[in-house]
Amino acid sequence: MKPQPNHAAVAEILATGEEIRTGALVDSNSAYIAEQLELAGLKVVRLNGVGDELDRLTAVLKEIGNRADVCVVTGGLGPTVDDLSAQAAADAAGVGLHPDPAALASIEDFFRRRNRPMNPSIHKQAMLPAGAEVLFNPVGTAPGFQLMIGRCGFFFLPGVPFEMKRMLADQVLPRIEGMLGGRRDVRRIKTLSCFGLTESLTGERLEGLGKQFPDVQLGLRARFPEIQVKLYASGADETRVSAALDQAAVWARERLGDLVFSDSGEPMEAVVGRLLRGRNASLAVAESCTGGLISHWLTEVPGSSDYFRLAAVTYANEAKTRVLGVAEETLARCGAVHADTVRDMADGVRRLAGATYGIATSGIAGPTGGSAEKPVGTVCIGLAGPGPVLGYQFHFNYGRRSMNKQMFAMKALDVLRRELLGLAHTP
Amino acid sequence: MKPQPNHAAVAEILATGEEIRTGALVDSNSAYIAEQLELAGLKVVRLNGVGDELDRLTAVLKEIGNRADVCVVTGGLGPTVDDLSAQAAADAAGVGLHPDPAALASIEDFFRRRNRPMNPSIHKQAMLPAGAEVLFNPVGTAPGFQLMIGRCGFFFLPGVPFEMKRMLADQVLPRIEGMLGGRRDVRRIKTLSCFGLTESLTGERLEGLGKQFPDVQLGLRARFPEIQVKLYASGADETRVSAALDQAAVWARERLGDLVFSDSGEPMEAVVGRLLRGRNASLAVAESCTGGLISHWLTEVPGSSDYFRLAAVTYANEAKTRVLGVAEETLARCGAVHADTVRDMADGVRRLAGATYGIATSGIAGPTGGSAEKPVGTVCIGLAGPGPVLGYQFHFNYGRRSMNKQMFAMKALDVLRRELLGLAHTP
Repeated sequence: MKPQPNHAAVAEILATGEEIRTGALVDSNSAYIAEQLELAGLKVVRLNGVGDELDRLTAVLKEIGNRADVCVVTGGLGPTVDDLSAQAAADAAGVGLHPDPAALASIEDFFRRRNRPMNPSIHKQAMLPAGAEVLFNPVGTAPGFQLMIGRCGFFFLPGVPFEMKRMLADQVLPRIEGMLGGRRDVRRIKTLSCFGLTESLTGERLEGLGKQFPDVQLGLRARFPEIQVKLYASGADETRVSAALDQAAVWARERLGDLVFSDSGEPMEAVVGRLLRGRNASLAVAESCTGGLISHWLTEVPGSSDYFRLAAVTYANEAKTRVLGVAEETLARCGAVHADTVRDMADGVRRLAGATYGIATSGIAGPTGGSAEKPVGTVCIGLAGPGPVLGYQFHFNYGRRSMNKQMFAMKALDVLRRELLGLAHTP
Repeated sequence: MKPQPNHAAVAEILATGEEIRTGALVDSNSAYIAEQLELAGLKVVRLNGVGDELDRLTAVLKEIGNRADVCVVTGGLGPTVDDLSAQAAADAAGVGLHPDPAALASIEDFFRRRNRPMNPSIHKQAMLPAGAEVLFNPVGTAPGFQLMIGRCGFFFLPGVPFEMKRMLADQVLPRIEGMLGGRRDVRRIKTLSCFGLTESLTGERLEGLGKQFPDVQLGLRARFPEIQVKLYASGADETRVSAALDQAAVWARERLGDLVFSDSGEPMEAVVGRLLRGRNASLAVAESCTGGLISHWLTEVPGSSDYFRLAAVTYANEAKTRVLGVAEETLARCGAVHADTVRDMADGVRRLAGATYGIATSGIAGPTGGSAEKPVGTVCIGLAGPGPVLGYQFHFNYGRRSMNKQMFAMKALDVLRRELLGLAHTP
């Protein structure tokens, strides 16, 4: 990817904390922030991470203050002695710390609305560098703040991802928009969420995109078990940027076909939920190897009680017969991991719940329980609905139990999605 | 956290690539490398990320060359024009690039063993800075290399995680061990996993730890809904380091009491599983508001089929009566979210599965469905076992459905843990 002509303001990101420095935590905040800043028309040039050491933190803030126009910092705003961001910012800016009335009011408000008692250590979070402007935190106790250090506008945010995301959207991006004025490029991203091929095979389908659309950049991002195809375009002219992106998206969708389950970033469970609701249909789930994960995903979607009736996680064979009515004869003849068994499970849970559709999984997530005939990674998926009851067998092994569970659960939802859309069931 | 006496060699990590700079990819490599270097006795002080821009990349390499003893760089070793690591390293070291016979042999060997044809662009990967030592890549086409820049020993590795991990283990860590000799520190970490108080209240219980144990550093890490108390110690003398850490851990456990559910990093579901197995007991779960999450967690543990029998995710009231045998009278009198209802659910699922214990949840995860009397965040938890059937009501609201679900599920497992250990049920 070629560097762009440098008319955009440059940004850096700094993640702080011992868990970042030592690798105890994978820093997903910085990637999220980078993407948002790039969308806002900034050019992110550098990511930084340091631990909770006052001297080093102060030095890095000073460095960035000499290099960048904008910097977003995460972490170190909490109430404990490890939380050094305000002190380091004050030292780097050459000012003192003082209790900030707006910050204190924001913290008190948080506790009042939740009827929680405030403990004294919380007051530390209201100590801000002189000249800082408080950034209200509606979803946590630690307010953030904005401060100039050197030539750079710094935004200090909590490290808790959902607090950071909320404050970035509500407090930081609007301020950056104001700061930038005419120095902004338009930047657009289009995401196609895919399931069914590996990252490299998905990428191969899109070979030639760069030649066909020189202004559009392609990024593949594995959010296991889904693959996100990201198309990026930027430039001064909004109409040109949007047109280039739309054309590239049409081209990419043609090549990806029904691998694409969403072009709006929706997760699979929300897509399936929307399809069920649109058909006034309901769903019941019988899970063995997926252990409740399908049900957990489905119920992450607000309003899922409109279509989701029941899940039976029948881990033991006895539960399969007693709760779902799977015939003992089927289990004796085929075993738990078999297309006939999952057909009985899907049909059984559909009847039990009085639902339009029933889906069922049974397989071997590992690390043990595999055999020569049915190795770890084998999964059977059953689907019952208004039509004939279907049963499939697949094999995926990622060497880790939790990855296998995720792949099995996603595949089961994709089988249902294909049924609801009348697509071919490609094994 | 105070800086340690600096007898350990300091390390930095640099991730390169447009996907890192723009946030299209979450950089999990750096956390992995940091953890490995820390275990090897280095002190990682800084993480860095830049895009594919020759000037900036060269400048960062020079900077690090003046700051650190060791640096691991990932990415930019491929065959395309974007892959700039070798050129930047040569520029930073003030040397030229030249074709390296060992690197070329390593690439040719890779293709020969796979019977793949070599395309000419691959030869670019054999161009290394003068003075570099090639690092063999047994699992990919791009060899890495080692080079001194300034006072720092750099190791350049591919960005593909499994190639990086293999080369770090086989090529880099043994070389670092050789380089460090007597400069290696022993480093130990102890983790106490806690549940039941917020991060700041947990931290308050441990006030004074730093004074009592000056050689031990304290870090709190919120892995919602659990809080991990981490104690770190390092130094030249292994016996002293271990003794200091053990004493601090005893002190901390006394102050944290039964908030601590593990001192070995085990998640709650593994702790509960171990307790069930030790008692030869089995478990069934009835979930409403937690939507399958308890069951999903329990079945993440390998071997959980030994004690986990069944989960019934009875989202609809009809499913509660039909599957679990909750009395229609109870539902009519109390509603779904009530201590009496979850008692019936826990008892019902325990009987249905023939299990030793049954736990049940019913509540309002939000964002909708709350009322003045039972606001979003209300959860009832039922517990059936050999003794009387118990029912509790709690309230936690984190403003997000998925966080509420996690807190409800964790609380239910903690109720069971307390029952299994004979601890008080603190509401």
